[in-house]
Amino acid sequence: MRHILIIGAGRSASSLIQYLLSKSEEEQLHLTIGDLSLELAEKKTANHPNATALAFDIFDENQRQTEIQKADVVISMLPAHLHFEVAKDCLKYKKHMVTASYISEAIQSLDAEAKANNLIFMNEIGLDPGIDHMSAMKIIDEIREQGGKMLLFESFCGGLVAPESDNNLWNYKFTWAPRNVVLAGQGGAAKFIQEGTYKYIPYHKLFRRTEFLEVEGYGKFEGYANRDSLKYREIYGLEDILTLYRGTIRRVGYSRAWNMFVQLGMTDDTYLIDNSETISYREFINLFLPYHPTDSIELKTRLSLGIEQDDIMWDKLVELDIFNENKIVGLKNATPAQILEKILNDSWTLEKDDKDMIVMYHKFGYELNGEQKQIDSKMVCIGEDQTYTAMAKTVGLPVAMATLLILNGKITTPGVQLPLNKEVYLPILKELEEFGVRFHEKTMPYVGYNPDKIGANLKYS
Amino acid sequence: MRHILIIGAGRSASSLIQYLLSKSEEEQLHLTIGDLSLELAEKKTANHPNATALAFDIFDENQRQTEIQKADVVISMLPAHLHFEVAKDCLKYKKHMVTASYISEAIQSLDAEAKANNLIFMNEIGLDPGIDHMSAMKIIDEIREQGGKMLLFESFCGGLVAPESDNNLWNYKFTWAPRNVVLAGQGGAAKFIQEGTYKYIPYHKLFRRTEFLEVEGYGKFEGYANRDSLKYREIYGLEDILTLYRGTIRRVGYSRAWNMFVQLGMTDDTYLIDNSETISYREFINLFLPYHPTDSIELKTRLSLGIEQDDIMWDKLVELDIFNENKIVGLKNATPAQILEKILNDSWTLEKDDKDMIVMYHKFGYELNGEQKQIDSKMVCIGEDQTYTAMAKTVGLPVAMATLLILNGKITTPGVQLPLNKEVYLPILKELEEFGVRFHEKTMPYVGYNPDKIGANLKYS
Repeated sequence: MRHILIIGAGRSASSLIQYLLSKSEEEQLHLTIGDLSLELAEKKTANHPNATALAFDIFDENQRQTEIQKADVVISMLPAHLHFEVAKDCLKYKKHMVTASYISEAIQSLDAEAKANNLIFMNEIGLDPGIDHMSAMKIIDEIREQGGKMLLFESFCGGLVAPESDNNLWNYKFTWAPRNVVLAGQGGAAKFIQEGTYKYIPYHKLFRRTEFLEVEGYGKFEGYANRDSLKYREIYGLEDILTLYRGTIRRVGYSRAWNMFVQLGMTDDTYLIDNSETISYREFINLFLPYHPTDSIELKTRLSLGIEQDDIMWDKLVELDIFNENKIVGLKNATPAQILEKILNDSWTLEKDDKDMIVMYHKFGYELNGEQKQIDSKMVCIGEDQTYTAMAKTVGLPVAMATLLILNGKITTPGVQLPLNKEVYLPILKELEEFGVRFHEKTMPYVGYNPDKIGANLKYS
Repeated sequence: MRHILIIGAGRSASSLIQYLLSKSEEEQLHLTIGDLSLELAEKKTANHPNATALAFDIFDENQRQTEIQKADVVISMLPAHLHFEVAKDCLKYKKHMVTASYISEAIQSLDAEAKANNLIFMNEIGLDPGIDHMSAMKIIDEIREQGGKMLLFESFCGGLVAPESDNNLWNYKFTWAPRNVVLAGQGGAAKFIQEGTYKYIPYHKLFRRTEFLEVEGYGKFEGYANRDSLKYREIYGLEDILTLYRGTIRRVGYSRAWNMFVQLGMTDDTYLIDNSETISYREFINLFLPYHPTDSIELKTRLSLGIEQDDIMWDKLVELDIFNENKIVGLKNATPAQILEKILNDSWTLEKDDKDMIVMYHKFGYELNGEQKQIDSKMVCIGEDQTYTAMAKTVGLPVAMATLLILNGKITTPGVQLPLNKEVYLPILKELEEFGVRFHEKTMPYVGYNPDKIGANLKYS
């Protein structure tokens, strides 16, 4: 038997564990699934003969080292800041390690030692980061191998509600951490490069500068810019690219409506609201509206946001019940963002039979033999239920597949790494197709932003 | 001779030193004026027989302690974070101390020891903080002594260009630290209370929610909200007040125009612009505009900001020469805010004969014998030249006067304090009038925001 230690049995571990258990007979695997909650770990093992559930405390050094010592490879599904503890012990006991998180500086610092010990520390191999890296590198490598030169790379990803469960005016429900949705885009200007020109969008304009995206069979979407698109220049070897843009996908109209909260100041997470526990939703919105002795809160909201009487934006606000004077916030010492999250949770929590959906959309612009071309690559994945969600599948399956490839000696490059190598992305992208995670590619003439003017006359760009 | 040590001989020390030197004969004063720059200190002593200039390094412990030991009272005009070094030695050698800065937690922590040693550590006795405290407390105390109950306190202050030097479209020039002007309002939502309701204004809306103010003889002004008005509740004993608002004064139209920079994201000080040294002013503004292959930067600016062709906002932008493609930023690794400051400095630097102006405006609403009344108190001070500016006078004179009152035993309350006591504010406000710093008070029926509804039916407020 080969031993896999999985630390963390939360939502994103469902498909990961299901996959490895399904392979456990033929691949001779034994899983040890550790979680702070033994109940959660036991639920995930489901009495499978090749799995052991364990109450596991990452800060219990003795237990941590004992379990890591017993494993052949360790999967850490812990919050990102806890991976380092695991990684140090993986080095100590010469074990490979797999995570779906961004490489931290601490983890990166272990690279030389990992290489010296021929250990694979694979990271960013979930959905985003993960499938985005792999599906992008596959096409970028193909273009380069043909002798093409990359001009443009745009990449969008979003976690949404599936069409069959999409029954509110926002076309959105929380399918992952609600807090991250409320805080999306905060902490600095979004930065990218378009046709050779740097562009910066401040937070309060972010949701008003979106792009439209069409996915055949699923209709129209929109994308708003992520914080820093430019770090992908180096990672993907795109130092000379003219356009580089990463974005988040929502259904059309979401961003314009979300902007109402941004404009009012309701997404602010930097200060506490006085008496937040006892105010009503209605009083909450009024905190951000100018005082008036007689005008209603509704009128002040319409005026502040410039919402005309027949604008669907208004119905979106009303749908959230935000003008209700009987609903009490009930959160002590809460920030505006925390209160908004609570209000949204009332409306945007998935119902029992709701399914989620992941949409990913890449655009690759390139020049080949003097001709400018474009490949659009799109993937849609719909969840099965609220355990085997699209999010759990797309995050967990690549992690599981990479783990097995490492065990079977198919991934061999040592060191702290991202899934940018063919030995990683080719087999995983192929196998993901069996699970319905399939990219559809379409080649077309270059669209870009400015086909006639690339690299020339940027004075007025 | 009584010895006064003045540490820091910068711009705000001019009137302070002039005042004390003019009193030095009759009051038997000797000033030691220390500054990192001996030249600056010598310029301020101007060969006066009762003054000694000194090259002074606050971090030279030996020198610092020697000089403090020789003094009877120490004035620190250093940057606020350096006062603590001075204060500790003042305690050690039992010297009084005066500063124009906000009380830091470190300084506050010395209160008990200062009291035990019968030492006066007077702070916040410049303009704002300083004259605002004194002129407000005078009227609040008068209202209370009559048996009145405070309903509203609004207080505005601004450093502007004097009418005779006001010759640009913004009606504004830098009369004090430009960086603070560019960063004004950042770092959190503005917070205040209006008619019993908390109000929060996010930064990107701050300059669109202004109030108008009229000052007889000087015309109309506007005010935008300061960050935290509510700390004055406790300081002034206004815990139950229904309206408390502090603001910054500008000429009408400034805020609407400044909002253009806020909306574009040009006031951001949290990240660095790539190639900031070599880009032109024109390229700088284009960083914040959407890409377009053919539209001009001018057109994109108009469209982004919604500036119609006959709007004076446009002329304000053009006046700053911000579309110039030949003017180079020339600042290495600069933030948007630093670049904007540089652009504004080209246009907003005071010319040789320009004068500055300080405007302060308080509104006091109160109830007395069942009647609601209001007092408006206004002060305008115009600078003499670029040494004895209105800013230098209003910051420096109260510091100098307080120092003399302490030396002469007229201010006696020990401890770390603000100028809230009658023994401080009565003589200083009176003497300031001789220097043209005079408040004009006007009593009128209560205006407030909502005269008929105070304390009642706030449901729709």
